[in-house]
Amino acid sequence: MIKITLPDGSIRSFEKDVTPFEVAKDISEGFARNVISAKFNDKIIEITTPITTNGSLTLYTFKDDAGKKAFWHSSAHVLAQALEELYPNIKLWVGPAIENGFYYDVDLAEGSISEKDFKTIENKIIEIARGKHDFKMRNVSKSEALSYYKDKNDYKVELIENLEDGTISFCDHSTFTDLCRGGHIPNTGIIKAVKILSVAGAYYKGDEKNKQLTRVYGISFPKQKELTEYLNLLEEAKKRDHRKLGKELELFTFSQKVGQGLPLWLPKGAALRERLENFLKAAQKKAGYEMVVTPHIGQKELYVTSGHYAKYGEDSFQPITTPAEGEEFLLKPMNCPHHCEIYNSKPFSYKELPKRFAEFGTVYRYEQSGELHGLTRVRGFTQDDAHIFCTPDQLDKEFKDVIDLVLYVFGSLGFENFTAQVSLRDPENPDKYIGSDENWEKAEKAILNAAIDKGLNYVVETGEAAFYGPKLDFMVKDALGRQWQLGTIQVDYNLPERFDLTYKGSDNEMHRPVMIHRAPFGSMERFVAILLEHTGGNFPLWLMPEQVIILSISEKYEKYAEKVLNVLENDEIRALTDNRNETVGKKIREAEMQKFPYMIIVGEQEEKDNTITVRQHGGEDLGTITVEDFVKIVNDRVNKSLKTFK
Amino acid sequence: MIKITLPDGSIRSFEKDVTPFEVAKDISEGFARNVISAKFNDKIIEITTPITTNGSLTLYTFKDDAGKKAFWHSSAHVLAQALEELYPNIKLWVGPAIENGFYYDVDLAEGSISEKDFKTIENKIIEIARGKHDFKMRNVSKSEALSYYKDKNDYKVELIENLEDGTISFCDHSTFTDLCRGGHIPNTGIIKAVKILSVAGAYYKGDEKNKQLTRVYGISFPKQKELTEYLNLLEEAKKRDHRKLGKELELFTFSQKVGQGLPLWLPKGAALRERLENFLKAAQKKAGYEMVVTPHIGQKELYVTSGHYAKYGEDSFQPITTPAEGEEFLLKPMNCPHHCEIYNSKPFSYKELPKRFAEFGTVYRYEQSGELHGLTRVRGFTQDDAHIFCTPDQLDKEFKDVIDLVLYVFGSLGFENFTAQVSLRDPENPDKYIGSDENWEKAEKAILNAAIDKGLNYVVETGEAAFYGPKLDFMVKDALGRQWQLGTIQVDYNLPERFDLTYKGSDNEMHRPVMIHRAPFGSMERFVAILLEHTGGNFPLWLMPEQVIILSISEKYEKYAEKVLNVLENDEIRALTDNRNETVGKKIREAEMQKFPYMIIVGEQEEKDNTITVRQHGGEDLGTITVEDFVKIVNDRVNKSLKTFK
Repeated sequence: MIKITLPDGSIRSFEKDVTPFEVAKDISEGFARNVISAKFNDKIIEITTPITTNGSLTLYTFKDDAGKKAFWHSSAHVLAQALEELYPNIKLWVGPAIENGFYYDVDLAEGSISEKDFKTIENKIIEIARGKHDFKMRNVSKSEALSYYKDKNDYKVELIENLEDGTISFCDHSTFTDLCRGGHIPNTGIIKAVKILSVAGAYYKGDEKNKQLTRVYGISFPKQKELTEYLNLLEEAKKRDHRKLGKELELFTFSQKVGQGLPLWLPKGAALRERLENFLKAAQKKAGYEMVVTPHIGQKELYVTSGHYAKYGEDSFQPITTPAEGEEFLLKPMNCPHHCEIYNSKPFSYKELPKRFAEFGTVYRYEQSGELHGLTRVRGFTQDDAHIFCTPDQLDKEFKDVIDLVLYVFGSLGFENFTAQVSLRDPENPDKYIGSDENWEKAEKAILNAAIDKGLNYVVETGEAAFYGPKLDFMVKDALGRQWQLGTIQVDYNLPERFDLTYKGSDNEMHRPVMIHRAPFGSMERFVAILLEHTGGNFPLWLMPEQVIILSISEKYEKYAEKVLNVLENDEIRALTDNRNETVGKKIREAEMQKFPYMIIVGEQEEKDNTITVRQHGGEDLGTITVEDFVKIVNDRVNKSLKTFK
Repeated sequence: MIKITLPDGSIRSFEKDVTPFEVAKDISEGFARNVISAKFNDKIIEITTPITTNGSLTLYTFKDDAGKKAFWHSSAHVLAQALEELYPNIKLWVGPAIENGFYYDVDLAEGSISEKDFKTIENKIIEIARGKHDFKMRNVSKSEALSYYKDKNDYKVELIENLEDGTISFCDHSTFTDLCRGGHIPNTGIIKAVKILSVAGAYYKGDEKNKQLTRVYGISFPKQKELTEYLNLLEEAKKRDHRKLGKELELFTFSQKVGQGLPLWLPKGAALRERLENFLKAAQKKAGYEMVVTPHIGQKELYVTSGHYAKYGEDSFQPITTPAEGEEFLLKPMNCPHHCEIYNSKPFSYKELPKRFAEFGTVYRYEQSGELHGLTRVRGFTQDDAHIFCTPDQLDKEFKDVIDLVLYVFGSLGFENFTAQVSLRDPENPDKYIGSDENWEKAEKAILNAAIDKGLNYVVETGEAAFYGPKLDFMVKDALGRQWQLGTIQVDYNLPERFDLTYKGSDNEMHRPVMIHRAPFGSMERFVAILLEHTGGNFPLWLMPEQVIILSISEKYEKYAEKVLNVLENDEIRALTDNRNETVGKKIREAEMQKFPYMIIVGEQEEKDNTITVRQHGGEDLGTITVEDFVKIVNDRVNKSLKTFK
């Protein structure tokens, strides 16, 4: 008999050689039907693998990330088989599971694969899958493995040559065999729906000096319905692509002459960004932050002191020299060194702490052009940065206050679905970290206390702390269920050391302050991109570049339209008029596309009665009302979404 | 007889060999007493020089710049004589008049001159001056001149060797002779007051490889009272030095690690700057400007297109390269290329013009470290930049509107004394300029019309226009009478060409827009520096970082002080409390130094009566009043200085 410990801590006894699937059945027959992968003592195994010793077992369904991984890894095997059957001369390289689906890299030898071939490949995969072939692992010797692929596949031969004898295994299913480490679902029959998503070139071993192989991307699901949902989501994500919306809504643009990855904010985008900044500034002011302004460059020496040069220096934008004086400057990749120098510009007593310096600081970091993506991956971006300098005893309160601020930001912007990830140090490697044990304990306790106190849904990642301090990251789910990291709060014992920051304590001795880095938005660029994709451009009303468009039925009512505009502007409602000589139908269609939250239509009747006819974005009719009533409706809606901080 | 034309256009006849002094006497005896220098047909002459032909004559008193120049030039001669008499072994080099006073460079041969010697030198100068020695010019041959200085003064010998025979003259007064081109006051007796200001090292011919000479700076006046006034002004200017005030008021700082010439704005300075920005933003919004945001770098290519690279490139911050991709970026020295690219990001019709893109854009320009000075000469600064893109027909209105905006800015910030300088092209060199004659005429007319229409006190500088367009500069006098250039409005036909900017005209053809560059503040850094020196830190109330400080008589009244603070903050009055355990006397003294416009004192009586006792900066007592009355006083004063734009 052996003892199996389950994730809830319960322990069950089984005969030796019990399989995970049998354990699952012991828990519940219904659950067992969905179990597709397992982990035994930190090693992923098949659910058919016999267990021979005591240990911990986790069982996965498709809902779990590990389950998806096994499912997609197995689907890649079937894709490979399908490709071999359809293109007999191809040579396989490797095919892993990825975040969404899987791919396989193949050397086609001749011809190419294009979108028109996708359906054939999908059909072949489903045909194979329906055979319900078991995935069967077997260990092979190195010579066996080499002789299997010899004369057949140089890629696999090279791969095997780098493996150690005794660690090599093959996986068979149906007529297909692949070199494989394991981690499969029990059989192909579980794969009910598959979609080939795209095809791309990929260099052998990722090196552009090598031959270009063909990478075939696909995704698969246990149910047809799940595939349909995923494809709809993909379609919706395409519509919400911030690069597309940014162009349509005239928020930002790029210029080849200015340079890739360097966004130019157009008037509507700059106004949106300013509104976000003012929103955060107002809350930060209440929370006791002070704004500072620092230059976008600093002497190389500054970043040598901070350690950023050692970390980023050689792979980043290169130093700026001056003609005569032999100076070297760097574009700043971070604002913290500058804020440390501000802290250092005068002596502080413990009574004056915490100091909270905030700046919408634009930083520049080199990214390879292939890595750039709209506003989410750029070479210049503005952080909503702040650094709190406090005593170790103040950490607790400061951390809680920062969480309050972040939650206020999320709440006002419609992000309701998030978890917190608390990264602590690895207690088994205390030497990896800077700062005293006492301070680490204080900081980790402060973070955990704050997370509990604020009722956060949090997970602890032990060993994930940076060497200079523990942190808390917010992971936010957007409307399409995609996860984004937004809002980091990071404790830092390192920079205060490196910049020799001090304060005079109540004991009249000099002490080292602790630093907290925090940025609720992260960067203005990335945040606006996520917000665009989350809302599809239908921002919270308070944030909309233009809240109202006034459409006059004909040019005759232009004056009345301007009169209405005036009233709205006096009430600080952002509105504009469309008095073009076009049909109302056309004006409404265009306004709908531009996502104006409200359309006001004015014509003869409205002018006569001194009223307006109001239509909400999406089609809802608010009927014919007075301007004053409309102002109230707008203000109520704004106040509902934008609460006051504290 | 000869005919002399005077500046007012009148013509008077005199006997040949009339002197400027005699002409002055002919005008008025009183005037003649003050005349000290003259210009005949563009050549500066002594007032004792006989005039032999018809021509134009201008007569100068000490009030005129040319008069001051002759006065200080002559004073330099007397300084040289005094130094020769006091230090018999010295050798003279040169001694010109400068903006404020004069200097003489001498090779001391032995010993040194320091502040303790100044009085002796001044006394010697006055002793010589009282001799009322005439300044007498005489022409000398090159050989005569050389033999005079031979064995006596190598410096003068070298100087003379480079002069052409027939152009050399000496000036004698008293026992002293100097090589000199002329331009003196009639005699030393007019110099009534003198002050040696400083002494410094100066390399022979300004070349650091040469010997270091001693430069003695002085200033002199026709009246003792004028010297006293000047020294007071100097004293006041020292007190108002923005570097000193910036430190005292905690507005900004510099860090050696970040780099010289790169200011770090401290919380109070950043808030001040933001207030200025918001003030201008609000006015700009009303004037139809749209904010944009652009990066602080651009590809070298961008500045090659704009022409800035050819102009600044090699002498400025050097290009930033990237590790792998061979790109070259520059820190932006100007915002205009970026704004041109924004204009180019979509097509415009004439109906959509003018477009007015504004940005508080931080630019970087290399200055030698020796040239750096506080916030007035820096390496990174933020321009309150905007570019107006309009049709040639819209220039007239746009120019007037920009002047309105500039006047609003000056008015709100207490700059009441200014003139406009209109720079037009040189009609004799039409080839120097880009753009059609028709457009130049339009633009110059627009500027002159606008200046007249807005009632500006303006001067026209023909030939001073840039090659790409005419401009208008505002020259502002500060409270100490010093002149600053603030607020430029510049027409540009060049960049629209270089960036191939177009709009579709009413004729359906593509046309070139005109561009206007404008910056009412110039740069935030320089403007704040000038404002600090102009106001001595006593900013207009609406701009003060903190408007009110509430001093509690003892800690017992802390709660009441906080209550008063709350009321003020609700009314958006910027206030803070001083509840330290210090005497009220000390608190008042410190608050006075920090220039708080209002101090509120609260103690037992105030708490009981629910009142406050108010003291204005400078000492005036407003007595004991209610908080509500005080709020009204503050708001009235703010509204009086900060008018609404349009």
